Amino acid sequence: LRTGQSEVIFCQGKQPEQIISILKHLGAKSQNVLATRLVPDHAERILQHFPNAQYDPLARCLLFHPLEEPSIPGKILIMTAGTADLPVAREAWITARYMGHEAETIYDVGVAGLHRLLAQRDSMDSAEVLIVVAGMEGALASVVGGLVDQPVIAVPTSVGYGAHFQGLAALLSMLNSCASGVGVVNIDNGFGAASLASTIIRRINKNR
Amino acid sequence: LRTGQSEVIFCQGKQPEQIISILKHLGAKSQNVLATRLVPDHAERILQHFPNAQYDPLARCLLFHPLEEPSIPGKILIMTAGTADLPVAREAWITARYMGHEAETIYDVGVAGLHRLLAQRDSMDSAEVLIVVAGMEGALASVVGGLVDQPVIAVPTSVGYGAHFQGLAALLSMLNSCASGVGVVNIDNGFGAASLASTIIRRINKNR
Amino acid sequence: LRTGQSEVIFCQGKQPEQIISILKHLGAKSQNVLATRLVPDHAERILQHFPNAQYDPLARCLLFHPLEEPSIPGKILIMTAGTADLPVAREAWITARYMGHEAETIYDVGVAGLHRLLAQRDSMDSAEVLIVVAGMEGALASVVGGLVDQPVIAVPTSVGYGAHFQGLAALLSMLNSCASGVGVVNIDNGFGAASLASTIIRRINKNR
Amino acid sequence: LRTGQSEVIFCQGKQPEQIISILKHLGAKSQNVLATRLVPDHAERILQHFPNAQYDPLARCLLFHPLEEPSIPGKILIMTAGTADLPVAREAWITARYMGHEAETIYDVGVAGLHRLLAQRDSMDSAEVLIVVAGMEGALASVVGGLVDQPVIAVPTSVGYGAHFQGLAALLSMLNSCASGVGVVNIDNGFGAASLASTIIRRINKNR
Amino acid sequence: LRTGQSEVIFCQGKQPEQIISILKHLGAKSQNVLATRLVPDHAERILQHFPNAQYDPLARCLLFHPLEEPSIPGKILIMTAGTADLPVAREAWITARYMGHEAETIYDVGVAGLHRLLAQRDSMDSAEVLIVVAGMEGALASVVGGLVDQPVIAVPTSVGYGAHFQGLAALLSMLNSCASGVGVVNIDNGFGAASLASTIIRRINKNR
Amino acid sequence: LRTGQSEVIFCQGKQPEQIISILKHLGAKSQNVLATRLVPDHAERILQHFPNAQYDPLARCLLFHPLEEPSIPGKILIMTAGTADLPVAREAWITARYMGHEAETIYDVGVAGLHRLLAQRDSMDSAEVLIVVAGMEGALASVVGGLVDQPVIAVPTSVGYGAHFQGLAALLSMLNSCASGVGVVNIDNGFGAASLASTIIRRINKNR
Amino acid sequence: LRTGQSEVIFCQGKQPEQIISILKHLGAKSQNVLATRLVPDHAERILQHFPNAQYDPLARCLLFHPLEEPSIPGKILIMTAGTADLPVAREAWITARYMGHEAETIYDVGVAGLHRLLAQRDSMDSAEVLIVVAGMEGALASVVGGLVDQPVIAVPTSVGYGAHFQGLAALLSMLNSCASGVGVVNIDNGFGAASLASTIIRRINKNR
Amino acid sequence: LRTGQSEVIFCQGKQPEQIISILKHLGAKSQNVLATRLVPDHAERILQHFPNAQYDPLARCLLFHPLEEPSIPGKILIMTAGTADLPVAREAWITARYMGHEAETIYDVGVAGLHRLLAQRDSMDSAEVLIVVAGMEGALASVVGGLVDQPVIAVPTSVGYGAHFQGLAALLSMLNSCASGVGVVNIDNGFGAASLASTIIRRINKNR
Ligand SMILES: Nc1ncnc2c1ncn2[C@@H]1O[C@H](COP(=O)(O)O)[C@@H](O)[C@H]1O
Ligand SMILES: Nc1ncnc2c1ncn2[C@@H]1O[C@H](COP(=O)(O)O)[C@@H](O)[C@H]1O
Ligand SMILES: Nc1ncnc2c1ncn2[C@@H]1O[C@H](COP(=O)(O)O)[C@@H](O)[C@H]1O
Ligand SMILES: Nc1ncnc2c1ncn2[C@@H]1O[C@H](COP(=O)(O)O)[C@@H](O)[C@H]1O
Ligand SMILES: [Mg+2]
Ligand SMILES: [Mg+2]
Ligand SMILES: [Mg+2]
Ligand SMILES: [Mg+2]
Ligand SMILES: [Mg+2]
Ligand SMILES: [Mg+2]
Ligand SMILES: [Mg+2]
Ligand SMILES: [Mg+2]
Repeated sequence: LRTGQSEVIFCQGKQPEQIISILKHLGAKSQNVLATRLVPDHAERILQHFPNAQYDPLARCLLFHPLEEPSIPGKILIMTAGTADLPVAREAWITARYMGHEAETIYDVGVAGLHRLLAQRDSMDSAEVLIVVAGMEGALASVVGGLVDQPVIAVPTSVGYGAHFQGLAALLSMLNSCASGVGVVNIDNGFGAASLASTIIRRINKNR
Repeated sequence: LRTGQSEVIFCQGKQPEQIISILKHLGAKSQNVLATRLVPDHAERILQHFPNAQYDPLARCLLFHPLEEPSIPGKILIMTAGTADLPVAREAWITARYMGHEAETIYDVGVAGLHRLLAQRDSMDSAEVLIVVAGMEGALASVVGGLVDQPVIAVPTSVGYGAHFQGLAALLSMLNSCASGVGVVNIDNGFGAASLASTIIRRINKNR
Repeated sequence: LRTGQSEVIFCQGKQPEQIISILKHLGAKSQNVLATRLVPDHAERILQHFPNAQYDPLARCLLFHPLEEPSIPGKILIMTAGTADLPVAREAWITARYMGHEAETIYDVGVAGLHRLLAQRDSMDSAEVLIVVAGMEGALASVVGGLVDQPVIAVPTSVGYGAHFQGLAALLSMLNSCASGVGVVNIDNGFGAASLASTIIRRINKNR
Repeated sequence: LRTGQSEVIFCQGKQPEQIISILKHLGAKSQNVLATRLVPDHAERILQHFPNAQYDPLARCLLFHPLEEPSIPGKILIMTAGTADLPVAREAWITARYMGHEAETIYDVGVAGLHRLLAQRDSMDSAEVLIVVAGMEGALASVVGGLVDQPVIAVPTSVGYGAHFQGLAALLSMLNSCASGVGVVNIDNGFGAASLASTIIRRINKNR
Repeated sequence: LRTGQSEVIFCQGKQPEQIISILKHLGAKSQNVLATRLVPDHAERILQHFPNAQYDPLARCLLFHPLEEPSIPGKILIMTAGTADLPVAREAWITARYMGHEAETIYDVGVAGLHRLLAQRDSMDSAEVLIVVAGMEGALASVVGGLVDQPVIAVPTSVGYGAHFQGLAALLSMLNSCASGVGVVNIDNGFGAASLASTIIRRINKNR
Repeated sequence: LRTGQSEVIFCQGKQPEQIISILKHLGAKSQNVLATRLVPDHAERILQHFPNAQYDPLARCLLFHPLEEPSIPGKILIMTAGTADLPVAREAWITARYMGHEAETIYDVGVAGLHRLLAQRDSMDSAEVLIVVAGMEGALASVVGGLVDQPVIAVPTSVGYGAHFQGLAALLSMLNSCASGVGVVNIDNGFGAASLASTIIRRINKNR
Repeated sequence: LRTGQSEVIFCQGKQPEQIISILKHLGAKSQNVLATRLVPDHAERILQHFPNAQYDPLARCLLFHPLEEPSIPGKILIMTAGTADLPVAREAWITARYMGHEAETIYDVGVAGLHRLLAQRDSMDSAEVLIVVAGMEGALASVVGGLVDQPVIAVPTSVGYGAHFQGLAALLSMLNSCASGVGVVNIDNGFGAASLASTIIRRINKNR
Repeated sequence: LRTGQSEVIFCQGKQPEQIISILKHLGAKSQNVLATRLVPDHAERILQHFPNAQYDPLARCLLFHPLEEPSIPGKILIMTAGTADLPVAREAWITARYMGHEAETIYDVGVAGLHRLLAQRDSMDSAEVLIVVAGMEGALASVVGGLVDQPVIAVPTSVGYGAHFQGLAALLSMLNSCASGVGVVNIDNGFGAASLASTIIRRINKNR
């Protein structure tokens, strides 16, 4: 498996039977596999076939082996603007750790309370790549992008209401960031952010 | 005139002849009148009838008498994220001054360079109302709203491109601000922001 | 707590456990706290931990102490176009009262029955700030804005169907108001409207 | 010609040569024809072939014979919210008069100045059908619809900027009108409004 | 009651208790009242208080007295493109009949089967006003508008999927109709269409 | 060249110099090449290098050799709703003929005048594939799709205004067609429609 | 029945009773009928009346007789980008087979794994028409369109999340395909794709 | 200057006088500065003040010193789908080179001609970061993302028409890419893509 990502299965829109058959095909018992976007109902039915797997209801992820200690140098820092962004941040964290990376998470450092964000300067400086997870107006990506020199991966979330339009407000905000060094992934795509971060860090290590 | 705003004429979509006839009707020679959204071409034709009027091409505003010293206590602080937001800020500034208010403008304090913004703490603290003018991702409104206790009026601008959709990105961003105490006006509506600020300050003075 | 607003917790998108832990952290038993956007199911689970708290199902708000008599001079008048706008108006009313303000509510004065609105002239004149809550075409904000000199805070609601697009019609309508002195907050954001009103009134009192 | 409308030619998107050939085919010299949406440049070229025709630059309409006195009983009242809505109102007026109807126009009675509107009560009561032409937030349609019992035809205009989105705000507003008895036509469609009004009035006269 | 429409209550977004109290206020027992947009659950609770009322689950309407024979001359013809448009057509039919009008309904004459539509020529010719109810591409409004001289009221419905966007496709289609004499109401607004038809027919009778 | 389409160059967004160099590379002098979406200004500069080429300003197409007699059996019928749809229809016609097909065009058979359309029954029956080009509400695609058994390719055009949103209304209408056997291409994409028609007819001939 | 498609009933938005009555009218017991977009609940109630019918829960289709061997030469190849696109592909497959066509399905050949797609070269070459079913970014349509000379029918699916906007992303992608010979149907419209394919193949056979 | 990017000036929306004053402030004569989004008219006026500067009309960029040989190891590969994407690719290339990076550009490898793309395998493998510039359906980002393990930065362009909506189609497509390791920047944002690439490569070198 070339990218180390092919053992990931995206469960949204798939029937439990389909997921189980794919998991068997991937040999999910002997080898670790990550299943994302798995709703609790479906998780339950899958756990009946794979009783040793562990389901994380917050991240809606399933893993077949416990997470191992990080094996690849270079920390991924995941920051969220609010508490409600947690599920997306957690999907990113599990993905990062599953791919072998060191990952740290800092919650609730939205821009309306700037001092809380600025207090995290050290954590930010020691990261190789930063993932910024934010709903509402998504301003955190711009502020973090302006503070650091490292690559910033912005994940808009669907957290919000009214003129948020299920994440559109945060998405547009991040795409129009006035800070440079910011790349954007799809709304709520914690997995995608971690994959991109992993791609960057594996590139760094290849050149080390 | 009850609100002191009826001497304002909004020129967009009006023919020069129409504007001239309205101006005559308002007695623009003896009394001061503010004309907004006046394109240079139309301004020229109007100046032929009112040679003493003064046209501000940046703000696209025309005034018939020079601005007087502010007569109403309470400073309106107008902040912009970038240089390209200047025309909108200038429309707000002229409107505020025309309505009798003290008004200060600070340019180019976008959130990607947080230190420049934080250096303006004193100006911000001494304002009665703050107007935040920003295009791109419009994050400045949230950051300012988080820093101050005064009312913040957010003006999204059409400054941007691509997924900015002529100001939509900044507008949605500001409507979803995670800071409280923020009210939003239409895209590029510098006049409206200053009018609302004026309404607030006149209320304060009525109660003084 | 600087703005008097930090004891508010926005519950949407948060798990009951998360809310409970935040409430404990804020010391919600000794000190009053306002929880907004709390769905009935979650409220029930929280009431098991805080049996003295009171839940308002219409406003979807939870309070830990009974509301006290208003302590800050200056009335906030909350007007709605229809009966279905009540939940949003109620959220605004509780927020205003929780923040110490005098607040009055007038229901069902939509513009299709102009006489009912005009009959409220006295209530409108005696307010310091007006909050206009309207769904459908949101025209009430413009009409009220034209009638009064005080600041008007417009809250579009998601009340409507079809080409209303969950509040978009009312939002655009309010942003394009031909009356001046109108600021807009997010769709259904009763809390935000009351916060902004509070900011304005506290400013007035500071200058009294 | 059944509906009396087939002698109307919509010129937008057509080349002058195409328009001239259609006009010749319709016998525009002997019989009157109405050409709408004709830009000045094209009008000039057409006037070279039809020197007796008259072009109205405001309405962007061309007529081949002078308008005759109204021959069909029943007044169409055309009201506009602002001065900038005039071109659309004028297109409606010419269409109505061309189709044989009595038509009256009242300008600048937008809802932010309710007294000016209410002063027109008599004109409104004496109309058979009302056409309301408004840009910005388009609230005039709801207010008029609430005041009268006659059919109201609402024409949103593209007059506005920013979150107006070229007439979308006024269109959505009118479609969501809380007044009943209101039908909507396309943005800037003065011709369509007058046609519908004509259909209604001809129906009334058929039954007289 | 001037327009004969004030005895209509729009129930969407209202709590059953609110509806009951409004109904009592309107004297719904002695006088007939029409309640629209009433979901079955709420209808049940209301029927417990008003056991003689009758609920039409298809139209989601409640009436307190049986419909009387039409008392106002002039037929309203309601045509639908498909079977799934029935609920909206039924809301229009009940409203029309409740307001005293003669109303006829023709189902399933969508433009993909033109012969079925053309077979209804007589019914169309004998109507005073036509209401066209259509989802999908909403083309029926244009075709009917081209066939008849009477006023056509177009009601886009939310019947469709995918790029229909909950009725947007049919709405835009109808607003851009190439036939003249067509007015549009909101998506799924059967009530509004019948109200407008009623306004027109009452105008005709006033002039009879 | 496999599909016979590689000699087509799409000129929009390309500089004249770029186009000339591509044309030279394709050997446009010896072999015929079709250049589409070529604005008059650019066409002029290109004609200076290729004086024998012929530019069709309506279709905005350039050809290097005169069109030959159709060599592939099977007629493509191109129908337009209005006169303003002509440029798109003409692009389709030139493309079809350039690719060797027999192509017929029928203008101005929009659904508001059904009899004109029905009069074309024979032309429609003798076609192998039909291309329907329509702006406004785009209803023609559904009506034609309901009348014929052959494949119908629908081309929405940007002809319209207001709520047409540059072709969106016609596009959505065609995608939601209630007739079956209809495939849609991009707005104004006459070339794409003819290419698809060509693909189908070449398939038919391969199987002959 | 002219097109052989009139025995298809589209069940979405119809009540079970309506469906049953239509089925009886069509003589669904003696003759085969295809019911599409039938949700499981409704299917159950219909099966009580027609116990011999067979329901396919994946495709949400009901058939009254078993599928017969294909009777019309010319294979329709249905390809999907992912596993979650299966329901739409299955609706297309059943429709194609019901209409008498040979149909083959290939799953999970999305463009992120190009080698899997290229391995299907032979299946692609032996098809008369190709149907490409894809959600996410819908890129498969362009890649397949570039690889083959046959007509390609693109079906965007609603499979995706966030900025997918229920299929909009895939739809726009397919409409803007840089490959030629591609026609698009509505989001999730497997039935429509198969109908169009059938129209094409029946045309081919007519000419054989 | 921390990031080495502060000598870049974004000229869109700025007046020539403003640009000149900023350039003087930055000491653009002694030190190199990059000006982007500079329209030819403005460039001309600026060149009068800085006659040694060089303007690239394709990229709309101005540089004050000639580009130096790349000083930072690690190639950035910039690929475009079509010729019309060149201006955006060129902006990226100049930015990358200005920031000291090695940069290679490959044009016209859109997915409709897969062989041309696959022929570039070696160039792709030798790059550290890939920038994919594509308009139309933007599928190139997914295909490249599936072929390589390195980070891919996707730049949607506004190249297209109709349902492209000025780049929206390509943007949504790229955000929904089924390949992992892809980050997206704003429509036409060649500068932003190169900045992000630079951030990544400088990170790699820091760790070398
Ligand atoms: N949460 C997620 N969001 C987006 N893409 C995902 C997610 N989880 C997995 N994927 C991608 O989906 C691929 C698996 O898709 P599938 O073959 O449909 O299971 C993985 O290789 C990932 O590239
Ligand atoms: N730049 C502006 N943007 C929005 N509204 C404006 C502006 N300038 C003036 N107005 C409003 O337009 C009114 C005048 O409109 P009018 O009567 O059309 O000239 C003023 O009283 C203001 O309320
Ligand atoms: N189905 C409906 N759709 C739109 N408007 C309605 C509907 N039913 C009633 N209405 C309108 O709503 C008014 C009553 O609103 P309310 O006072 O909120 O009950 C009536 O007088 C009608 O104008
Ligand atoms: N008017 C048009 N609209 C859409 N696509 C076109 C058009 N004309 C040509 N094409 C396509 O664009 C390709 C050439 O693109 P290019 O290589 O950029 O010139 C042709 O092979 C066609 O597939
Ligand atoms: Mg940075
Ligand atoms: Mg604040
Ligand atoms: Mg006011
Ligand atoms: Mg009325
Ligand atoms: Mg008609
Ligand atoms: Mg057909
Ligand atoms: Mg092909
Ligand atoms: Mg990859």
